[in-house]
This record gives sequence, C-alpha cells and structure tokens, in this order.
Amino acid sequence: MPSYRAPVDDTLFLLNDVLQYQRFSGLKGFADVTPDVIAQILAEAGKLCEEVLAPLNQSGDANGCRRDADGAVRTPAGFREAFAAYAGGGWIGLPVPEEYGGQGLPFTLSTPMSEYASAANMAFAMYPGLTQGALAALLTHGSDEQKRLYAPKMAEGRWTGTMNLTEPQCGTDLGLLTTKAVPRADGGYSITGQKIFISAGEHDLAENIIHLVLARIEGAPAGVKGISLFIVPKVLVNADGSLGQRNGVSCGSIEEKMGIHGNATCVMNYDGAQGFLIGEPNRGLNAMFVMMNEARLGVAIQGLAQSEVAYQNALAYAKERLQGRALTGPKDPDKKADPILVHPDVRRMLMEIKAFNEAARGLTLAAALDSDVVHRSPDAAARQAAEDRLGLMTPVLKGVLTDLGFDNAVKAQQVFGGHGYIREWGMEQFVRDARIAMIYEGANGIQALDLVGRKLPRDGGRAIMAFFKDAGELLQSHGDKEAMKPFVAPTQAALGDLQKASMWLMQNAMAKPDNAGAASYDYMHLLGRVALALMWVKIAAAAIEKKAREPEQAARMDAKLVTARFYMERMLPETGLRLARIVTGADTMMSLPADMF
Amino acid sequence: MPSYRAPVDDTLFLLNDVLQYQRFSGLKGFADVTPDVIAQILAEAGKLCEEVLAPLNQSGDANGCRRDADGAVRTPAGFREAFAAYAGGGWIGLPVPEEYGGQGLPFTLSTPMSEYASAANMAFAMYPGLTQGALAALLTHGSDEQKRLYAPKMAEGRWTGTMNLTEPQCGTDLGLLTTKAVPRADGGYSITGQKIFISAGEHDLAENIIHLVLARIEGAPAGVKGISLFIVPKVLVNADGSLGQRNGVSCGSIEEKMGIHGNATCVMNYDGAQGFLIGEPNRGLNAMFVMMNEARLGVAIQGLAQSEVAYQNALAYAKERLQGRALTGPKDPDKKADPILVHPDVRRMLMEIKAFNEAARGLTLAAALDSDVVHRSPDAAARQAAEDRLGLMTPVLKGVLTDLGFDNAVKAQQVFGGHGYIREWGMEQFVRDARIAMIYEGANGIQALDLVGRKLPRDGGRAIMAFFKDAGELLQSHGDKEAMKPFVAPTQAALGDLQKASMWLMQNAMAKPDNAGAASYDYMHLLGRVALALMWVKIAAAAIEKKAREPEQAARMDAKLVTARFYMERMLPETGLRLARIVTGADTMMSLPADMF
Repeated sequence: MPSYRAPVDDTLFLLNDVLQYQRFSGLKGFADVTPDVIAQILAEAGKLCEEVLAPLNQSGDANGCRRDADGAVRTPAGFREAFAAYAGGGWIGLPVPEEYGGQGLPFTLSTPMSEYASAANMAFAMYPGLTQGALAALLTHGSDEQKRLYAPKMAEGRWTGTMNLTEPQCGTDLGLLTTKAVPRADGGYSITGQKIFISAGEHDLAENIIHLVLARIEGAPAGVKGISLFIVPKVLVNADGSLGQRNGVSCGSIEEKMGIHGNATCVMNYDGAQGFLIGEPNRGLNAMFVMMNEARLGVAIQGLAQSEVAYQNALAYAKERLQGRALTGPKDPDKKADPILVHPDVRRMLMEIKAFNEAARGLTLAAALDSDVVHRSPDAAARQAAEDRLGLMTPVLKGVLTDLGFDNAVKAQQVFGGHGYIREWGMEQFVRDARIAMIYEGANGIQALDLVGRKLPRDGGRAIMAFFKDAGELLQSHGDKEAMKPFVAPTQAALGDLQKASMWLMQNAMAKPDNAGAASYDYMHLLGRVALALMWVKIAAAAIEKKAREPEQAARMDAKLVTARFYMERMLPETGLRLARIVTGADTMMSLPADMF
Repeated sequence: MPSYRAPVDDTLFLLNDVLQYQRFSGLKGFADVTPDVIAQILAEAGKLCEEVLAPLNQSGDANGCRRDADGAVRTPAGFREAFAAYAGGGWIGLPVPEEYGGQGLPFTLSTPMSEYASAANMAFAMYPGLTQGALAALLTHGSDEQKRLYAPKMAEGRWTGTMNLTEPQCGTDLGLLTTKAVPRADGGYSITGQKIFISAGEHDLAENIIHLVLARIEGAPAGVKGISLFIVPKVLVNADGSLGQRNGVSCGSIEEKMGIHGNATCVMNYDGAQGFLIGEPNRGLNAMFVMMNEARLGVAIQGLAQSEVAYQNALAYAKERLQGRALTGPKDPDKKADPILVHPDVRRMLMEIKAFNEAARGLTLAAALDSDVVHRSPDAAARQAAEDRLGLMTPVLKGVLTDLGFDNAVKAQQVFGGHGYIREWGMEQFVRDARIAMIYEGANGIQALDLVGRKLPRDGGRAIMAFFKDAGELLQSHGDKEAMKPFVAPTQAALGDLQKASMWLMQNAMAKPDNAGAASYDYMHLLGRVALALMWVKIAAAAIEKKAREPEQAARMDAKLVTARFYMERMLPETGLRLARIVTGADTMMSLPADMF
C-alpha cells in the first residue's frame, strides 16, 4: 500500500527562509502567526492527512460512491468520520473571518493543508476544497444576510458547497447556458435545468449542500452577459438558520470516471428549485470568477500534490527494489543486486519530479501570499501589484502544475516497472486521479488562452511588465555572487526567451489572432518554466544563506543546490524549444481543411 | 461509444509510394503480393478489426477476465468468437512458412494487421500477438521435431503461446532468475518456480497454451549465463500431436491492472511441470531475444495503434462539438457556436498526433521490411545491413512510439474536455491501455540503455554510422529541389544534433559510464525524432511525385505536405533540447546521496 508523509519541513523552509513570511506580519491575521505557530499548525495538518486521509485513499478508489434509487449518495467507508475530523479540526474555516465562524488565519496557511490533503486523498480533499471555494464567492459577493445565514455553517463543515456551471451543451462556452431562473413572488427565483460534472454534488458528509448555480433570468440578454449566480440549498434554510424543506434539486446520476472515485461527480437536476440571487442580476460570471480563481489555484495544488505523493512512493521503491548493478560497479556487493536508485535513468525520473515539486510548492505559497495581500493589505499599490501577479500566474499555475503533476505521476509509476501497472501498488491511481486536474476548472488549453488573450494584454500589459521587472531585479541582486552564477545565468537566458516570445506575440497576434491561439499553450509552459526557475533562484539564495548560518543544515541545503542545478541544466532549456514553436506562427496549424485531417 | 476505421489507404500509400514495396519482389513470399493483393488483404484485415474486434473493446475493458476457483480463466464475452474469426482468417499464420501451416506471406503484411487489431482492441490483440512471438522463437531455435509438433497448431490458432520471464524478485535483471529445471530420466526437464505478469497466461480461447519459460538447469552457472529456454505446454502433447495429460502448470491468480483488462495477466505456478529444452542449455536468453525483439516491435505498434484510434475519436468529437467561436469570427454563424476544430489549440493537439501517426506507421513498416530482408534475402550484405538497422531501431521504436503513443492518447482525451474523463466515451480506456506499452517488454528506460550501451557501440558503431550515411544520402538526393527545402533543411539540422550527441557519447561515456546512462533516455528520443523526420522527408518526396502523377490525389497529398511542415516546425526542434540535456552529463543526476532525495 502506498504511503504519504506531509513535507512539512520543506513547506516551513519555503515560508520562512525563501518567501520570508515574516515580512507580512503587518497584515490582518498574520501578527500572531510566528514561525513556531506555523510549525505547529502544519504538523497538525500533516498528521491528520497522514493518519486519517491517506489510509482511505486506495479503498475510496476501489469502492467509489454509490447512488441509491432515491438519489442519495453514499461516500466510501470512512469518509464520514474523516470529514468530521477534518471539519472538527477547523481546517475548512481556517482562513474565514472570525465573524463568520472561521479562525481568521492567513489563506497562506490554508494552502499547505490543501496540498497535504490532496496528496493524501485527492477525492476526499475536494469536498472541503469546494466548500472553501463556494465560501470565498459567498463572502465576496453575498449580501450580509446571505453571509450570516450560510457562511458559518459552511466554515464549520456542517454544510458543504459546490459550483454548478457545466451543462450538456455548455462547457467552456458559458454563453450557451440554458438553465432558467424565473422570479418568484417572494423575491426569490425558481431554478430549472440540468447541470453536469458537479463534483461533490450529493453525498452523506454534511447536513446540507449549498449549490452555487449559474442560470439565466427570464428575459436576460443572450450570451455571457445574461448569466446570474444563485444560491440553491439542497435543504432550504429558515431565517433562524434551521433546516426547512427539501429543495427541488436532486442528483440524477453519478458518472463512472477514470479516477477520483471517492468524489461523487453528479448530474444535478434543478426542477423549480428555490434559488437566491447573489450579487447583481446578469453579473453572475463576475461572482463565479472569484470562486473559479480560488478553485484554479486549488487545482494547481492538486497537480503538485499528486506529483509529491507519487514521488515519495517511487523513491521508497527505488531504494528497496534490488535489480541490476551500478554502471560503475556493485554498490552493495553483499546483496544479489543494487537498489535501482543507483541507475542514472531512475535518478533522472526522480530528480525531474523533485526539481519540479520543491519549486512548484514555492509558487503555490507565493500565490497564496499574493492572495492574502490582495484581501488584507491596507496598501493599495501593494494590493494592485499582488492582484496583477495573481491574475497572471493563476492560469500558468493551473496549466503547468497540473500538466507536469500528471507527467510526474506517470514517471513515478514508471519507476515501479510492471508493478506500477498493478492496482495494489497504488501508483496507477495517482495517474488516474492526477489526470482530471488538467481538465476541470477550465481545461489547460483554456488556461493558456486566458493567459495570452486576457491576462497578457490587460491594462496595457502591466502584469507581464511587472513580472519582467521583478525578475530582472531578482537576477541583478544575485548577479555578482559567484555561488549564484549557475542559477542566475541560465535563468537570465530563459527570461530572454520569454521576452522574445512576448514581443513576438505583441507584434504578430493583433493582426492575426490565430497566432495568439497557436502560441498560447507553448507560451503558458514557457512562462511556467521561467517562474519555476525564478523560484529556484530564490531557493538557492536562501539555501546558501541558511547553510552559512546553520551548518547542521548543510547537507539538506546542498541537496537543494544540486536540485536547483539539475533544474537549470536539464529542465529549463525547454524554454528555447517553446520559443521556437511559438515563432512558427499559426500557418501549418490552421491550413488543413476539416476533411483532410 | 468510440469507433475505429483502419487506415488502410495510408498504409497502402506508405507501402507502395513511400517505401516502394515492389523493390522487394525478389524475396521469398513477395512475388505474388502485387499492389492489388496487398490492398485486398489489408481491406480484409481492416474489416475484421472494425466489425469484430472494435465492438468488443469497451465491454472487454468493463468486464475483464475472471479466474475460477480451479484456475481456469474466462475471457470477456465475445472474445472466443472473435478469436475464432481471427484465427480462422489465417491471420496468426500469415507470415509463417507454409510447411508449418502458415501462408508464407511477408511479415510486412502482418504488421498492418497488428496495428489495426491493437487499435481496435489492444487487450484482445495480445492473444494472437504473443502466439506469433512464441512461434517466431520456436521456428528460429526449436528442433525440427518441436517445430513439427507445435508450430502448425499455433499458426492455426488452435493453440496459443506465451513468454515467461519475470519472477517476483527478477524483472529487468534476468540474472536473478530462480525457476529451476531438473533433468528427468526421459530426457525432458521438470520445471518448478513462479512467474508473474504473464500476459495471456491462461484463458479459454484455445485448446492448449504453449508456454516458453526461462529457467535455470540444476547446477548451471549463476547469472544470465545459466539460463535456458523451455517449452512447457499447458496440456502435454503426444507424439502424434494429440493432447495428453494436463501438465503441472497453473494460473495462481490474475492481476488487477490499470488497463488491458481483456487480457489475463497471470501469476503462473510451475510445480514440477514437464518442460522441453529449446536450443542449447544455458543459451536461453539468446533464444528468447528473438521473441523479445519481435515483441518489442509489436509493442511499438501498440503505441502507434492507441495513438491512431484515440486520434480518430478526438477528431470526430472536434468536428461535432460546438463550443465558442473561431478567433477570426464565426465559421458557422447559423449555429449557436462553431465546432471546436476551429480553435488553434485543439488543432495543435490533433496535428501533433497526426504528424506522429503517419511517420510512425512508416517506421513500423520499414522495420517490418527489414525483418523480411533479414529472414528472406539471399544477399548477405543486404541481410547484414537490415539486421543492423533493425537492431538499432527496435529499442528506439519501442521507447519512442510507446512514449508518444501514450502522450497522444492523453492529448486526444484532452480534446474531449470533461467527457474525456468519463468512462462511457472510451477515451480514458485508450490512455489506460496505452500506458502498459511503456512498461512491458523492457521498460522504456531499459530500451534506452540497450540502445546506448549495446546497439551504438556494437561492431565499432557500424549501425549508427550506416544510419548517418543513409540519412545523408537521402537528404542529399532531395537537397536541390526547391519544394523539398522545408523538409530537408530542418532534418539536416536535427541530424547534426544527433551527430553531436553521438560524438559526445563516444568521448564521454567510455571513461564515465554514468554519462551514458544519464544521456540514454534523451538520446533515444533524439534518435526517434530524427527517424520520424527522415520518414517525413520520404513521405513528402513521395507526395510531391504522386501529386504530379495523379492530380486527383492533390488535396490528400497537400495534407501530407502540410503535416510534414508542421512536424518540422513544431516537433523536430525538440532535438536541440535533447542535445542540451545530454551534454550536461551525469553530475547533477548522480551526486545526491540516497537519504537526501
């Protein structure tokens, strides 16, 4: 059976030494969170994930969710108790303001828990994860009354949340949405339509489920400008917060999927269900975007999480499995063979994963810090800068961390040879589970289009310009240190590739939008590789300092420096390939007639 | 439900126009195979795969194989009838000499059937595929008596075959093999031990199963030099060919796997089973390599096959699914949205798959022709050259076609968005099935080591030198044609990368073998990309000629030229990245201590 250890030490190193979390002590909720407090919270988080969630991962996959004839859905054995422990530990409400039943702690502290929980049991972690996303939308766009009525119960985990966008004919293109909202005499709406692919749409973990549903108010404009967002509780809530009647929403079926079997992916039927408008009519997408952005970061973290747990198990196997001899002669002559970790190609796979995981973790934490700045900083300029960075990086993290997270799960499975293909070893589940992260919350091709079509040109390119400025300053600040040269020089070159690609887009995409579309996926990955390199530069600098300050950490910090060099030498050169592809333009991609494919 | 159409026209174009199959009419079995005959045979092959095998693919996956308490294994519903049709059509014995019950036709004609069958139903196709591999080993190394006794029934499909190498402690490292062979008074051997991961190890498709089993004769040397190969029939065969007693071999369990559920992957227990030595004692690996090389080519074809069937379904979906509008304005203004084939990033995925499939198919057919030359040419020099090419290309095709085949199945699944993750659409099965091809018959890392450690240095580098010479001549022969420049120039540059990488290996791998190990995977992919480019050069040249000769083919040939350009512009530049990785050497890969990962 696979195992999992939460990488608490690595998270602490990133928060304390690399990102210097203490810089933010002036923000609301940050003051009391000393390094000791962080360490304690993360240790608790890790323990819950290791001891309660991870042991249910394989059985949850094997048994899946069951829908009874009456539409009720039962989650796998043990999920109810695990959810009670998770909710009871205050993990859902951790970043929620205290007035709404949360702990008011930084979102940044919630992010490692998202990673650990997703690594330990991705299907399970989606139940609290979606609840947190729904809460974020509610707290940003809901009325005071709505917040008072729904938020505390959700923060507590007594109720959970979902997001309902997709319909059979309407996926990426939300303008095709047809679910109807008809005004009722009591000020509410009557919601009718079918939603599909609704994760955690129905289950037995909580007393109530608060669905956030996109629908079109009768008479609203066609397209995306006529979409509104509604609260549709599974069980109607009385004014005093007590539960009332069952609402007209039910789970019509659950999907048979490739993975995440422990999470119920539901077809939800709304049949004149009572709904309550959130925010302005016809401005539903705007409200939903809050939830989607948070969810996209959450999905990026799922990519990292599957990569991490797959890595840990592949590493353990590579140390135990004896097969063949080192090319340089037997390493363990007393045994019949050496552990396969001696083989360069096995190390290649493990190093590629490791070099991704540690920097990707840094990027998710940096994004979480930006999110905290956006929501909590009193400094408007700082908020704006953080919002720009977050807007730019959200599609990149979602696209790149899930693509590479999946690739890494595949690589880790490969380390196991034939055993990797066999269910009981657990590796193939990581691959199947990781696969969905490339698809949902906007398929990765859509992330790339969001990046190139919206985020790059927005505000005259302010976000990408700031990215270049920050990167340039970082590299310059380390440029004259001999020990930093192996990291600074290649990153500078890769940054040059990104700048050339950005320039090419500016010059070639306006006149011919297909050039932007044709370049988008490579551009997203190019930016992602550069962002990972910049994070490695920061990690390397922090490691060099820490090694000098704490000699007992030297071996661990040297490992970071080796891994950073591996990234620079073997993974970063991909930026040149991405640039070469981008500048070929759209011609060969677009010229084949449909019947000649 | 997914569908499949055998790409017969493309196979014919490759055989007739690109590879000019008619050149080989002097070889045994080739004379009567005119273009009309080939077309007829492939049409029949396609029909069987489309109408009989493909409809059983999804149900075979859903239902899998069942083992009864007595060790008998039942294949999924319909497999028995399908196998009878496959065997009855003479497809297993197609390349087998007539004296052993076959049709004596070229192996090259058997290869398209392997592709079509693997695309239509990979789990099914393994039953005849393994039988063909076992037959090849038997015909090469068996005694006349053994061939007479076993081969005709196998060619007929009344009996099937397996290969038994792996044991729990012994995968790649066959030196660790412990299955014992004890000589019996009657000249046979008594075989005892456990084999795992035995595909088609037990089933209900045939009257008998001929297991080829690696075992160690009592007192034989340790390591790989003490391994012998045995025939161990499930049911003992009397001298007159009739079936005798049940032998002491049985299926202990079947594995729960990620995919290929329709094929029984068995733990086989040999308990004093009667075995019959094939070839010389202690020379078993030598005999098994015949089977393994054929099997590796077969697995390469599985990679291509899954890529092809996944492509066909993704293309159909991209034409049907309406979502969003073309970036250049509505293509289908009367409908609510355009088909997603208008989006550049959807086309990117499809073009990447298409540009792989067509050239990869060419490479499998070229390898099959080489195999026919090796076995049938009267010209010793031609045989030697073909054997060198085949030896060099077998690990490359196995590693690269299965890696990219899997990547392509993942891409095709991505085209479906959320529906790609749902079982009923069938795309996730292609991904799960394709995954095993990267692992079995030698994991792809082992292929890379075989290439760099054995195939490159063998005979003073004769094979790779011949590869460079052939490539240089091909490019020179087209170098002065204006229409060929877009293909010749990039291929020349990529060939330069391969030459640099080869030179670097010569200079750096002798003194430091880890450099070879660290470079091996990238070198395999670098060589694979160049081989695909060379095939595209041949395809482009043939397309230009055909277009001039047969104007009615112009649109189809123009599509080939666009696809060739796409390959050159967007896929071939990867050679530069591979070279950059190779020349960094082994340092960062090897320097981390085991406890610092």
